[in-house]
Amino acid sequence: MPELSNSPFAPGPLNQLRAKRDRGRYDASEIFAILDCATVAHVGFVHDGRPMVIPMIFGRDEDRLYLHGVRKGRITSTAAGAPVCITVTLVDGIVVARSMFDASMNYRSVVIHGHAREIEDQAHRLHALRRISEQVLPGRWDEVREPFEKEVKGTSVLEVVIEAASAKVRSGPPMDDRVPGDERVWAGVIPMLTSFGQPVVDAEVPTDVALPPSVVALTKEAGLK
Amino acid sequence: MPELSNSPFAPGPLNQLRAKRDRGRYDASEIFAILDCATVAHVGFVHDGRPMVIPMIFGRDEDRLYLHGVRKGRITSTAAGAPVCITVTLVDGIVVARSMFDASMNYRSVVIHGHAREIEDQAHRLHALRRISEQVLPGRWDEVREPFEKEVKGTSVLEVVIEAASAKVRSGPPMDDRVPGDERVWAGVIPMLTSFGQPVVDAEVPTDVALPPSVVALTKEAGLK
Repeated sequence: MPELSNSPFAPGPLNQLRAKRDRGRYDASEIFAILDCATVAHVGFVHDGRPMVIPMIFGRDEDRLYLHGVRKGRITSTAAGAPVCITVTLVDGIVVARSMFDASMNYRSVVIHGHAREIEDQAHRLHALRRISEQVLPGRWDEVREPFEKEVKGTSVLEVVIEAASAKVRSGPPMDDRVPGDERVWAGVIPMLTSFGQPVVDAEVPTDVALPPSVVALTKEAGLK
Repeated sequence: MPELSNSPFAPGPLNQLRAKRDRGRYDASEIFAILDCATVAHVGFVHDGRPMVIPMIFGRDEDRLYLHGVRKGRITSTAAGAPVCITVTLVDGIVVARSMFDASMNYRSVVIHGHAREIEDQAHRLHALRRISEQVLPGRWDEVREPFEKEVKGTSVLEVVIEAASAKVRSGPPMDDRVPGDERVWAGVIPMLTSFGQPVVDAEVPTDVALPPSVVALTKEAGLK
């Protein structure tokens, strides 16, 4: 296993990009900004010698990420104590080039390495669950009742302190190796956007109950979350 | 390493859901439909005992997936011959429940297990690259020049035959454990959509060059790709 560098955000054996190095970013604030825009992370761990990659929602508090799952689920029982890789990807566009070789994607991605540790302390568990909730729908936690004790007990909550992190970013137009004959080939970028649709109220909610502020705020945000 | 079942789509030790089993799908056509809607996959492999998860574009041909990367990149050099996990996630909405415990996401995800194998045959490599291209922007391959031999040679192309696969799908309204006092709490779903913006033409394309059919077709599609 490669040794980790002193700062999780300095390029080291684990997080330094090997290919297309100009796309690498090792700045904590840029890495946090990408994480904070994402709704879902892809969490990798090793299970019986095989890689497993599972989509999960997550939360962040400074240099640590929080995950949760059903107690005794595959992730929470095998990932706890083990090395994990948490990857977040925001796809911003399709880069249409003059040749297939130069075709690309615009994106912002972050790869985090760390170890998952199960949180036992009740207050810490609640704090982590709140951060996960805030990441998905800011403000919602305070609009609903406190979790029941049995609900929190039935949930595994994992903490992953960031040990190594890097971001990879591509933006802008195609970077073509121009060749004779491609002068009239169309090239450019097709932007990709993630947006929210009109909220669909549950059939059992009385018709005079207004949309809560959390939902209003999220769906009023323009474009990408 | 768990043994694989005879059919990659039958529930087995590797792909059977352990938690929330009612969300599991083991039907090839449903799994393929989810894969075919996605632009990016998260590819997991084991590197020096650690899990690595990297976002990659991909292509599919029946029960095999194709990946590509820079020759001698981290993925193509460590994943070739090794077990990989390829996960695709389409996020469809935020499920806003009457309590945090019942909050959820609507999504369609697929987890594929297999081994990555480097393709050496030139015609097979071109076929795989075409499938990857078609997955991202259908029709584009035929609009541009054939790849140069040196371009294909500088690219590693991997084939992953699906050995085990499962999909996990959640849709619909919140499934709340109703408690006294929550009668007037708003609940519902905030749909999430991925869409394409207006194409941005590269500055060097002459103004009388029209949008190619591939770009017109993709951006005319409504909503989720």
